[in-house]
Amino acid sequence: MKRTPLAAAMALGMSLAAAANANEGMWMPTQLPGLAKTLKEAGFKGDPSALADVTAPPLSAVVRVGGGTGAFVSGDGLLLTNHHVAYGVIQYNASKEHDTINDGFIAQGRDDERAANPDYRVLVTVGFDKVTDEVLKEARGKNGRAYYDAVENARKRIVADCEAEGGVRCSVANMYYGSDFYRIRQLELTDIRLVYAPPRAIGNYGDEIDNFMWPRHTGDFTLLRAYVGKDGKPAPYSKDNVPYHPPAHLKMSLDGPKEGDYAMLAGYPGTTYRLRTAAEFANQIDTVLPRRVEVFQQLIDVIEAQGKGNADARTRYASQLQSLKNNRKRAAGELEGLLRSDAKTQRAQDEQAMLAATDARYKADIDALSASLAAERDAGAGDFLVTLMSSQTQLLRSAMLLERLRIESAKPDAARESGYQQRDQALIEGVLKQVQRRYDPAVEKALLTALLTRYQQLPDARRDARYDALFGRTPEQLRKALDTLYAATRLGNEAQRLSRFEAARKGGALEADPLLAAAATLVAAQLDAERESKEREGEQLRLRPSYMQALFAWRASQGRAVYPDANSTLRISYGKVEALHPRDAVSYSPVTTVAGIVEKNTNTVPFDAPRPLLDAIARGDFGSTADPVLKTQTVNFLTNLDTTGGNSGSPVLNARGELIGLNFDSNWESVSASWWFDPRYKRAVHVDMRYLRWLLAKVYPAPALLDEMGLPRE
Amino acid sequence: MKRTPLAAAMALGMSLAAAANANEGMWMPTQLPGLAKTLKEAGFKGDPSALADVTAPPLSAVVRVGGGTGAFVSGDGLLLTNHHVAYGVIQYNASKEHDTINDGFIAQGRDDERAANPDYRVLVTVGFDKVTDEVLKEARGKNGRAYYDAVENARKRIVADCEAEGGVRCSVANMYYGSDFYRIRQLELTDIRLVYAPPRAIGNYGDEIDNFMWPRHTGDFTLLRAYVGKDGKPAPYSKDNVPYHPPAHLKMSLDGPKEGDYAMLAGYPGTTYRLRTAAEFANQIDTVLPRRVEVFQQLIDVIEAQGKGNADARTRYASQLQSLKNNRKRAAGELEGLLRSDAKTQRAQDEQAMLAATDARYKADIDALSASLAAERDAGAGDFLVTLMSSQTQLLRSAMLLERLRIESAKPDAARESGYQQRDQALIEGVLKQVQRRYDPAVEKALLTALLTRYQQLPDARRDARYDALFGRTPEQLRKALDTLYAATRLGNEAQRLSRFEAARKGGALEADPLLAAAATLVAAQLDAERESKEREGEQLRLRPSYMQALFAWRASQGRAVYPDANSTLRISYGKVEALHPRDAVSYSPVTTVAGIVEKNTNTVPFDAPRPLLDAIARGDFGSTADPVLKTQTVNFLTNLDTTGGNSGSPVLNARGELIGLNFDSNWESVSASWWFDPRYKRAVHVDMRYLRWLLAKVYPAPALLDEMGLPRE
Repeated sequence: MKRTPLAAAMALGMSLAAAANANEGMWMPTQLPGLAKTLKEAGFKGDPSALADVTAPPLSAVVRVGGGTGAFVSGDGLLLTNHHVAYGVIQYNASKEHDTINDGFIAQGRDDERAANPDYRVLVTVGFDKVTDEVLKEARGKNGRAYYDAVENARKRIVADCEAEGGVRCSVANMYYGSDFYRIRQLELTDIRLVYAPPRAIGNYGDEIDNFMWPRHTGDFTLLRAYVGKDGKPAPYSKDNVPYHPPAHLKMSLDGPKEGDYAMLAGYPGTTYRLRTAAEFANQIDTVLPRRVEVFQQLIDVIEAQGKGNADARTRYASQLQSLKNNRKRAAGELEGLLRSDAKTQRAQDEQAMLAATDARYKADIDALSASLAAERDAGAGDFLVTLMSSQTQLLRSAMLLERLRIESAKPDAARESGYQQRDQALIEGVLKQVQRRYDPAVEKALLTALLTRYQQLPDARRDARYDALFGRTPEQLRKALDTLYAATRLGNEAQRLSRFEAARKGGALEADPLLAAAATLVAAQLDAERESKEREGEQLRLRPSYMQALFAWRASQGRAVYPDANSTLRISYGKVEALHPRDAVSYSPVTTVAGIVEKNTNTVPFDAPRPLLDAIARGDFGSTADPVLKTQTVNFLTNLDTTGGNSGSPVLNARGELIGLNFDSNWESVSASWWFDPRYKRAVHVDMRYLRWLLAKVYPAPALLDEMGLPRE
Repeated sequence: MKRTPLAAAMALGMSLAAAANANEGMWMPTQLPGLAKTLKEAGFKGDPSALADVTAPPLSAVVRVGGGTGAFVSGDGLLLTNHHVAYGVIQYNASKEHDTINDGFIAQGRDDERAANPDYRVLVTVGFDKVTDEVLKEARGKNGRAYYDAVENARKRIVADCEAEGGVRCSVANMYYGSDFYRIRQLELTDIRLVYAPPRAIGNYGDEIDNFMWPRHTGDFTLLRAYVGKDGKPAPYSKDNVPYHPPAHLKMSLDGPKEGDYAMLAGYPGTTYRLRTAAEFANQIDTVLPRRVEVFQQLIDVIEAQGKGNADARTRYASQLQSLKNNRKRAAGELEGLLRSDAKTQRAQDEQAMLAATDARYKADIDALSASLAAERDAGAGDFLVTLMSSQTQLLRSAMLLERLRIESAKPDAARESGYQQRDQALIEGVLKQVQRRYDPAVEKALLTALLTRYQQLPDARRDARYDALFGRTPEQLRKALDTLYAATRLGNEAQRLSRFEAARKGGALEADPLLAAAATLVAAQLDAERESKEREGEQLRLRPSYMQALFAWRASQGRAVYPDANSTLRISYGKVEALHPRDAVSYSPVTTVAGIVEKNTNTVPFDAPRPLLDAIARGDFGSTADPVLKTQTVNFLTNLDTTGGNSGSPVLNARGELIGLNFDSNWESVSASWWFDPRYKRAVHVDMRYLRWLLAKVYPAPALLDEMGLPRE
């Protein structure tokens, strides 16, 4: 049998895997048997091969919940996830009588468990099968957009066939950038109920101030329960439904974590970029992130300057301003981290060595890939500005939404671009309505002036002539164009927007308006740009697998396996409980205690721990949940596990596979980890399960839940 | 011989001293022989009795420099102190040709050493003698102001007699709040020269951002040299002067500090309040500090509100605003620290136990002291507001200065209140001139409105009727009074102020002005308040010794000695190199390294380490100054030594009495230590002498200075 480099890498790499960073890797469960030796060396006491099947225990206890992860913790469908992952459910159940957000919630028996919002979903994976050949069959021999369409059509067909069986939701996951495809079959549980939520000032203690921070003192957990119809099948909420019996559930450990202990985590990490090319790394570090920081800062400055002496505008743009500040801070943090890790040089040196060792058969593809990436890079500055022109405005965005909705609505629903299908119309209507609260013409014109002035400064080849025609080539022409447009448009009036919405959703002509006329031109440009982008995407989908093959071979030669970049599929990471040394002379212990809650407490949001918690800490009544060495109650802990967004709510297991923690955040120093894993700084932040047990035992008691999980009541 | 409790405490306490906090204590050198046992236990390898005499080695190497401390480090008068203590000297020598601040300075041989500003002084203590009986002889039997005057007159007479001998500057220090007095004789060296200063970005790396912070990476040191006339006597600068040969100099250790090592420090700490009564602690924590935070915050708000839309006012008040913010931050930090240490309760419990054990003979005095302190406390709110009315204004302050100067200038110079003597006139003129750059009538009226509104709200008994008459009793009356005053006054004109200054300094009548008329009333009130204050001060001076006697006896019964509160006299503190655990899960190592300089560096002030330093770090060329365990160059270190303002520049010695560090700051958590020493948080921050040696050896070389100090050149 002829081995592909990937197969060779998997065979060889497995025994020597991850020689570089023992704790780097978001492994597909199917890779774990091959990692048996390193897993054992790291301290895992279980059978690595038992971790390979996502549909068998223990991984079958791990599910997708909302935008994150969760795990079943009892045979009766009790489900543990983060407070912030279940936040919508808690909010949905808040009422004047019962402030579930601030006071928390404890169901008084199963009859008292409260239905989640109807669109809340829990997905249980019941199938994970490679379908690479089926996906690529039609695509082979094609190029560009044709390749893209062939892959997309095959994926849609596989999903349709899969869902035709009924009772499951299917998807096709793309691994290693088009190298492999997996069909994922998931049970969609639709009757989810709220069982136990701590008060906000426990579940979200520290809020934005402590977000991304360590040391941390947050009880970021909530217990839900999944229900199904009496026939055991998923069903919408009904009081006749019965608890779901999951294929597996995790057992909570009676011991807690301590520095150096083995730890592992399973979850659904969202997106990483670690297998991108050196050129993409360079572009991200040299151009994309600095540009984001600069443009976001400029928009922040514009809004703040406009807000001076205009209290009304300040209010209208407060939320947009905060969001821009968060985005700016995040981009700056990513950039700082990548520079600190010298990721550009390291990735470039690694790729250079790889290319020197790569088979000629992949070289041509890799060169072609570079050309496509260069074209994408060249378009980047303009694309970024154009995106911001709609995402950072209210009226222009409304006009563009209406025009695009009109165009898409002329097609059959299934053929419409995602975001403009019938199910999206409520969202569009919402955007058109919020204008009333979020729009100020002076601010919008100032934002567009900033963005279009930058656009005007792009080289000729990077500008769309339609923008030049609409907004001119000089500051004066731009000013006049915007003044004229905003003086003449009637879209500032809600009724005017909504009447056109009714026409657009039927694909009909829209009553004329100057801003709509401009939007028609801009949407035409947008559609052309999308076409170019899909053409490039198709080429990259065709070409990246050659880059991946070269990488597999190179890693195999180093004795290392390769994990696919995160793509919201189930992954496993293993490592250990580890302290953090973020700066010279500064050390953070990997376990925090309730003393820190008291130290941080100011009695004002977000450091307003509830009285019962403070009293229980003062009493020192910790029982069996106290740490035997620290002699006090622990709260959160830190591991070096490899996580990213989407890992919220991931169960953290010890060497025996018992539940010791619940992942909920990472540290600020690791904000750049989506591109580059730096073992010196990458940490994940978890709720210590002993804190959960203590709260349920002593502070906001729920003895029946402890019984159900087989845990002591004290 | 009848032993006083103090003598008993000194005899008994000595061997068991400081049982409570081994490292608490700013000891008078004369107390050290009695502390021999604990000193030995702490690790001191020398002879404790050698530390008793401030006029003999090694203490005779420790001198007062500027507002801080320094130490001789060679037999040729080479003197080590902080960069910030010598800052005036460095600034004085800055020129267009040589930017001594930013570039630093290295003298190319002795001829190149640069004269300090003529008012810069180094004081060498040559005598320290108890004169209690002489000071109190006339006071005994008197009360209040008469007691105060008798003490002051005796002190002045002792100083005059002492200085009559010539060549020395004398003072009388008050120890234990009137219990004991010491005559201090000091040689006043007046020809001080700049020898070696690192660049600002080393000597003040981190500036305000890192001030009070740990971990720290600042090379806060400078080398000066003292010169004297050829006859060996102090003399003003002359190029014929010769280096001073100090009675002793410290030897720099070749070893560095590491965690747990014994350390001691000698210096001139300024002011502490640790022996104040429980009622004074309660007042500070419950009233004084919260009031400061509140009022400073209000004044900050006033200036910021006035600055909105008034760029000129923003500039004029920028420095005052920054100073208010610093004061507010400091008061808030002190309050936070005292609350964290629960100082009020602890001090109250200690005093209660003391009083229960106190001889009846002291009880009546202690009761009388309480009554005097209560009166002072009651006057506090009004006194604080009145002080701010002149310190936070420009025009009103000018008017009050002129009026007070007129009154004082009618007396013989020696009888004038300090601050209004002939030598103070230049300062007053400076204040009158700076008004032009710092005054805006709208802001001054807004500040006075805030302060006088608070004054109006004081109870009747706490207000001076003269304020009511001037500013009314209602907001409307206040507004009118201020508008009228500021519309009519001509003091906003510099010539108007300066012409009156010429009249006032001669004690003559001042040309009439409405604001001057108001100031005359306010100064009359001020004089009355000062009289009352001195009356109380006299009573407290008479009564506090009884409280001290009770405390000595109580501490003796606990086996503890008592050190006097700091009063800018030479003290010794001993303890060890110790890490800091400021918060749950956070640990700071006690030694920082050059890695932290690189981490903090942003290339912008104040984190703009000079290129030669960054290059030397990158080269890793550390030679004999590298830490043998850390394998890199250290920068700063942390001890638990007991320090306060004035200890800047204090030499830190190891167990063998060798120089290992130079004190320059403390951590933010210990900002409340002037009232309460909390061993969990109190730390002092020092320059590691190995960093100084490395800079002189490898980065900004000065081999001749290393030779002079007997240190290796590598």
